[in-house]
Amino acid sequence: MPDQAILLLSGGMDSTTLLYHLRHTAPNTALHTLSIDYGQRHRVELDFAAQLSKRCGAASHRVLPLDLRPIGGSPLTDPDLNLPAAAEGAQIATVVPFRNMLFVTLAAACGETLGAHDIFLSPVLDDYEAYRDCRRDFYDGLESALRLGATHDTPFHIHTPLVHRTKADVVALGLQLGVPYELTHTCYAGTRPACGVCDACSERLTAFAVNNTPDPLDYSLDYRS
Amino acid sequence: MPDQAILLLSGGMDSTTLLYHLRHTAPNTALHTLSIDYGQRHRVELDFAAQLSKRCGAASHRVLPLDLRPIGGSPLTDPDLNLPAAAEGAQIATVVPFRNMLFVTLAAACGETLGAHDIFLSPVLDDYEAYRDCRRDFYDGLESALRLGATHDTPFHIHTPLVHRTKADVVALGLQLGVPYELTHTCYAGTRPACGVCDACSERLTAFAVNNTPDPLDYSLDYRS
Repeated sequence: MPDQAILLLSGGMDSTTLLYHLRHTAPNTALHTLSIDYGQRHRVELDFAAQLSKRCGAASHRVLPLDLRPIGGSPLTDPDLNLPAAAEGAQIATVVPFRNMLFVTLAAACGETLGAHDIFLSPVLDDYEAYRDCRRDFYDGLESALRLGATHDTPFHIHTPLVHRTKADVVALGLQLGVPYELTHTCYAGTRPACGVCDACSERLTAFAVNNTPDPLDYSLDYRS
Repeated sequence: MPDQAILLLSGGMDSTTLLYHLRHTAPNTALHTLSIDYGQRHRVELDFAAQLSKRCGAASHRVLPLDLRPIGGSPLTDPDLNLPAAAEGAQIATVVPFRNMLFVTLAAACGETLGAHDIFLSPVLDDYEAYRDCRRDFYDGLESALRLGATHDTPFHIHTPLVHRTKADVVALGLQLGVPYELTHTCYAGTRPACGVCDACSERLTAFAVNNTPDPLDYSLDYRS
């Protein structure tokens, strides 16, 4: 493991599990957590990312502004577009174009000024179908582009240790590590209690159900009964 | 040429020449110009980009916010750092890490919502030495990453038609095309009249001198005498 690394921490379930995993497996790596305020409806997640960073002793925590609302096209950033319910099978409608590519590139830009060239993020297997930018071959390509575009000839590494795991696997790992899932945020609608109906809530509830464990989060309706 | 395309237009000499070149060689392509407000000292360039877009009949012109000041490290975005004079040979100190990669990726994100998959930008040969993200092999890598990360399997193309031309070549081309260089902005210090001392001014003055043509811009000191 490198001396220092950057973790893209949204405050959601997957990146928080990765935070705890790294604290457990690489306790001596100085971990800089980075969150992006991109105009998401569920920006409440940023507060949780800050709390979790503090709790885990991150070397630094930064929130960078990158307003993606003018790009349009996604209900995650455009309040005039309806969030599809999971039952509609329209997860692809929530795509914010090139969001992960922009986030990783911003992380690399921070990395240049920090001297950190290892970037961790947490795409998971369930994301694969709707989000092409959650596949490992995309990150291989992006890693090449970062190496070619860095100010000096710098070997940036993009680490995606959860990319072949399902969300249920991720929750299983997190439960072992004692992740305080009540401090994570998932719901696309951005509400606390969570809506329980959107794609993100639905996937989360399923992942806990597979693990036969109640989700410690509050939901508007009791979907766990 | 495609039906529509996106041009990253800074309002500087190179991208404005490319704007006129495209208007001349591809008059039937709907050209969407895109400028980025990244917290640059010389943000006066954004006003010129807007004027030039209007003058050339751009299909649309947008200014996207992407504040790179929190990244730090470059005097272009940090007023506490000194801008090196050209004579200091420290052009690399002005690098804003991964600036072009972020700009092209934002352009691609806009392109997804517009349905435009051809992106034009104007790195030139003189940029090569200090700015690794101005080389064609970098753009080949970036193009691959865009294709892999697009929401649908979309063949994005990054066009850099000036990449093998010097700034002097670019001015020669622009003079033929009647580019109104008095409406472009170059000076890193962001002043009008231009400082005439920074790297950017120095390169511009040299490019006009090679063409035996006076630069129509005003400078604080008369460097043309």
